[in-house]
Amino acid sequence: MRAGVVGASGYIGGELLRLLLGHPHVEVAVATSARLAGRPVDAAHPNLRGFTDLTLVAPDALEPVDVLFTAAPHTETMARMPEFLGLAEQVVDLSADFRLRDPAVFARYYGEPHAAPGLLGGFACGLPELHRKELADADRVSVPGCMATAAILALAPAAAAGLIGPDVVVDARTGSSGSGATAGPANTHAERSGALRVFAPAGHRHEAEIAQATGLDVRMTATGVEAVRGVQVVCHAKLAGGAGERDLWRAYRERYAGEPFVRLVARRRGPHRLPDPKILAGSNLCDVGFAVDGRGGATLVAALDNLVKGGAGGAVQSLNVRRGWPERTGLAFPGLHPA
Amino acid sequence: MRAGVVGASGYIGGELLRLLLGHPHVEVAVATSARLAGRPVDAAHPNLRGFTDLTLVAPDALEPVDVLFTAAPHTETMARMPEFLGLAEQVVDLSADFRLRDPAVFARYYGEPHAAPGLLGGFACGLPELHRKELADADRVSVPGCMATAAILALAPAAAAGLIGPDVVVDARTGSSGSGATAGPANTHAERSGALRVFAPAGHRHEAEIAQATGLDVRMTATGVEAVRGVQVVCHAKLAGGAGERDLWRAYRERYAGEPFVRLVARRRGPHRLPDPKILAGSNLCDVGFAVDGRGGATLVAALDNLVKGGAGGAVQSLNVRRGWPERTGLAFPGLHPA
Amino acid sequence: MRAGVVGASGYIGGELLRLLLGHPHVEVAVATSARLAGRPVDAAHPNLRGFTDLTLVAPDALEPVDVLFTAAPHTETMARMPEFLGLAEQVVDLSADFRLRDPAVFARYYGEPHAAPGLLGGFACGLPELHRKELADADRVSVPGCMATAAILALAPAAAAGLIGPDVVVDARTGSSGSGATAGPANTHAERSGALRVFAPAGHRHEAEIAQATGLDVRMTATGVEAVRGVQVVCHAKLAGGAGERDLWRAYRERYAGEPFVRLVARRRGPHRLPDPKILAGSNLCDVGFAVDGRGGATLVAALDNLVKGGAGGAVQSLNVRRGWPERTGLAFPGLHPA
Amino acid sequence: MRAGVVGASGYIGGELLRLLLGHPHVEVAVATSARLAGRPVDAAHPNLRGFTDLTLVAPDALEPVDVLFTAAPHTETMARMPEFLGLAEQVVDLSADFRLRDPAVFARYYGEPHAAPGLLGGFACGLPELHRKELADADRVSVPGCMATAAILALAPAAAAGLIGPDVVVDARTGSSGSGATAGPANTHAERSGALRVFAPAGHRHEAEIAQATGLDVRMTATGVEAVRGVQVVCHAKLAGGAGERDLWRAYRERYAGEPFVRLVARRRGPHRLPDPKILAGSNLCDVGFAVDGRGGATLVAALDNLVKGGAGGAVQSLNVRRGWPERTGLAFPGLHPA
Repeated sequence: MRAGVVGASGYIGGELLRLLLGHPHVEVAVATSARLAGRPVDAAHPNLRGFTDLTLVAPDALEPVDVLFTAAPHTETMARMPEFLGLAEQVVDLSADFRLRDPAVFARYYGEPHAAPGLLGGFACGLPELHRKELADADRVSVPGCMATAAILALAPAAAAGLIGPDVVVDARTGSSGSGATAGPANTHAERSGALRVFAPAGHRHEAEIAQATGLDVRMTATGVEAVRGVQVVCHAKLAGGAGERDLWRAYRERYAGEPFVRLVARRRGPHRLPDPKILAGSNLCDVGFAVDGRGGATLVAALDNLVKGGAGGAVQSLNVRRGWPERTGLAFPGLHPA
Repeated sequence: MRAGVVGASGYIGGELLRLLLGHPHVEVAVATSARLAGRPVDAAHPNLRGFTDLTLVAPDALEPVDVLFTAAPHTETMARMPEFLGLAEQVVDLSADFRLRDPAVFARYYGEPHAAPGLLGGFACGLPELHRKELADADRVSVPGCMATAAILALAPAAAAGLIGPDVVVDARTGSSGSGATAGPANTHAERSGALRVFAPAGHRHEAEIAQATGLDVRMTATGVEAVRGVQVVCHAKLAGGAGERDLWRAYRERYAGEPFVRLVARRRGPHRLPDPKILAGSNLCDVGFAVDGRGGATLVAALDNLVKGGAGGAVQSLNVRRGWPERTGLAFPGLHPA
Repeated sequence: MRAGVVGASGYIGGELLRLLLGHPHVEVAVATSARLAGRPVDAAHPNLRGFTDLTLVAPDALEPVDVLFTAAPHTETMARMPEFLGLAEQVVDLSADFRLRDPAVFARYYGEPHAAPGLLGGFACGLPELHRKELADADRVSVPGCMATAAILALAPAAAAGLIGPDVVVDARTGSSGSGATAGPANTHAERSGALRVFAPAGHRHEAEIAQATGLDVRMTATGVEAVRGVQVVCHAKLAGGAGERDLWRAYRERYAGEPFVRLVARRRGPHRLPDPKILAGSNLCDVGFAVDGRGGATLVAALDNLVKGGAGGAVQSLNVRRGWPERTGLAFPGLHPA
Repeated sequence: MRAGVVGASGYIGGELLRLLLGHPHVEVAVATSARLAGRPVDAAHPNLRGFTDLTLVAPDALEPVDVLFTAAPHTETMARMPEFLGLAEQVVDLSADFRLRDPAVFARYYGEPHAAPGLLGGFACGLPELHRKELADADRVSVPGCMATAAILALAPAAAAGLIGPDVVVDARTGSSGSGATAGPANTHAERSGALRVFAPAGHRHEAEIAQATGLDVRMTATGVEAVRGVQVVCHAKLAGGAGERDLWRAYRERYAGEPFVRLVARRRGPHRLPDPKILAGSNLCDVGFAVDGRGGATLVAALDNLVKGGAGGAVQSLNVRRGWPERTGLAFPGLHPA
């Protein structure tokens, strides 16, 4: 199957290339980059040196493919979507532009009206753990945000089972790759290294996605931490209606039984008692766990690699679902320890 | 003035030595270490090579001094406090043993009954921003915990002015020095490097100190992050009674006007819009800031160096208050940028 | 094919498990650990949670297998080798005990006489790039040290072609995982983080391996740098007999043409102009490059993941060679960027 | 005394401000920045928030002062030097433009002819350990490069005493602040974090300064390592004429006896056996040490903070010498441990 990647010189684009080049049923036919058109892929992604001879092409050199992955910046994708839809039977979008179903919510969080509101309803959510059935038939897929993916997987089982109250604080932490490959005064190594930068003290954009997916009243904070890859969300909720730790265990075990990429990590002690993105770099796993405090409070935690399960990996997993391939195909890397 | 340091080979002990060796009115007369007795100070603290000829002595070689700083492990200090009080006119304790006024609360959070409950009421809280008047006469001082110091300074003005509701989530992040100098399988570099380790998902011990100081109903989570030094707290609260951002500004400006070590950091943009411990290593500053979300939520943030303002620096500042010296004496280092 | 791993709770042991669990032709039958016997594999290696149900067993519970990987500490393996050889048709040793052919050199570098000098000559060197033919028939393999592997691959083509003089300085840099999983006062995160620790200013043990493999007169320095994984060697040599950059290019291109895991990285500019282990974590690649200075000097550089190409990956690659499987089998992960 | 700083928004400029604001005999009268003119100092240096009310001014708003520190980029300073000399009795230059005495050597290493060769001979070298007497009278000072400072202090005593042969390899490692505050694709956090980037495999510019100062035949390599601050040099030399470890000890002890900022660090074991910049951030110290290998080789090591002893601190120390103030004035900070 022939695949194309739009925005292939970005970090999500690079992970798409890495995963697709290792996928037994996919051939990367074309990869675009405005910045590095004409250069080999490894000019952008030195890890792929020797793994492909592909040359990046200009955005207007895009050609028809079987599946097109679009990883262009937020708010730049929506206007081009009709063009993309004309080039491929299946389009998997990794921008934020088709994640929110309500154009008014989109406008509130992204600061401009949606350019293609009529298309919003046609995209399935690229989160197989919640939308597997829908994805089996979906030719238009929108992969949720990295922090949203983690928070939704952390909260959904408890929310669906009515085990937590509606008010939830989502405290998200993210590595520097989440803000992309473009250099600026705020993301030089000297400025960003070792930082604990509360760049979104309230109302981070992914808040809307989490609320949409879980029905909860979410308040979200995001902090940049010292890491290149990795997202962790720590969600603070209150247990509802007498629920306790056992109920949580039951709900999460049932919900995630058989899931190939979700692991329950909720021990009582040890350095690995709760999810930590440190051991997930490169993997498509999302670890999920929780703890209760004996006073009616619950802390729900999830971790993932923002460029994989929170981006390119979620996209490939959705493709696998659509094509009926085993979901682990091309996504088997387990992560490293120590790392 | 002659000073002594108990527990001088630990990280708090090392910072006490660094600050006291640079203090114009203090001479370090004796420093104890069970582990390194007989060795020079720089065997424990290589940064002090060339700054002192002092030799560490065994705990039982302690001698009378004018002021004694006790930095022994939690729950080991309380039984020895009568001995310490007999050796010095002033005792400044940096353990957790004399921070909580209620022995029942101590027992609940530290897992054993207090060994000297009769002494609990006699210690002033070594946080000059809230207890300056009391500290001016206090011969017994207990320095609050590092994360508690940050959270109390972040929350106290809003709590005192009734600007936030009683339920507060304190999300604390800490570097590896906070768990001390003792090696174990969980804190090797390979295991701890790059970690986002939610080591206290609920009910961290400092929760009790914050509740005691602010009267709020605090739920506290703590995560180890990639840093050696530094604490940041992100406090999630709801605004009370129609309060807004201006009220917060007024309350914090008034409360911290003239404070030598508290800076208000609450900008609308930029990499340094809110407090970040990255630029505070070595300094006695606590940066405090906040943001509101337009939906009645407030995020209050503070950052400090856990070994300085959250430990040794708070102790020296309290000494300066007691002796009537300018509070910045020996504490003038502003922190580094970039760092 | 049934495989066993001795020392499976160590870092090299963990990488062996990760690679073998993903290898299509190998089943891990037994894995020993003195420290964690009776515990599941993921108690030692949290990344493998969900990837295996294997339980670690005590060293004396080892059973016959087809291939045995021994990753016990240096100087502890040599006395047990006869036992190991009785348990498996093929033994791949990852300790230092069978790397040096001359027992006198072993004694000089390891501080004790060799316990099984009669076995020394029977081990093939587990470096397929130099010993592929020998490895095709070898039932006893000794994998070279991580820094030695890098230095040998950096120097061998130039040395074999007579392009550099005999005196070479090897400046090696290594992450913290190289010193193993055992906790001690020198490798806590607080002490080791951000360090540039010249732990072997002269005469590092791998010096002897490099000299043995290349015939050069090697002086070796090793520095611990801020990284968990990764080794880089920077070799300083003088060009011999009028050799220049073109000669180096020719020698390295010829020598490494077709090698599945060696890439030539020698550009004139850019952040990735020379080998950097940053992008190699988890991969079995060794990047090799060089530059000349116009004054007769040559700088030869190599980088790899010390736990993979410098350990477990080299062992699996050697197994692949012995069994006639494609060398990339189970070793296809390309590394991450950014990382 | 009134001081001015040219290039005050850069990293060296920021350190100059930090040190001068804490200096008891200096008042910062003017600080220029082309990029941030009109903004307060803390817009560039957030650590100085609350320590000064100074506003940055445009380069052409410079005014006469008693001492002018010029920290403009290399090759931009030389043409403006006559202007600077007209504005201040004393000028301390921190660019590379007046470090090399021979304009031909300058042209070779910096790629363009010197714009003011007639001024080259008039600058004293701002390294008091080697040029204290000259600096006592010098109104024109050029501070050596950060890596050059370390290497010169590591090598000079041995070179002067004839204890090492003429051929020396200098392997330098540096943090990211050394390349300045300007953002670009090579120094984003995601790209630079965790890197071991051999950015100068041969012939680094500081090579010429080291050769000029020591008379040795220097070959220099430079690698960017994971750190913001800090330089370490590892120098590989051969002992001359039967010299041994004792001779080195004698030479270094004599040479650096009484030096306020040089410490000999050369132990036989332990994590701090040789100089490590980890514990030197913010200090004006340069730690120097060495080891021999029993085969006639010597490894000489030095470490410092590139922005302090390798820049702003060296400049302030030179000012102290010129004015007859104690050299530690304003430079007493000892560095932190752990850090």
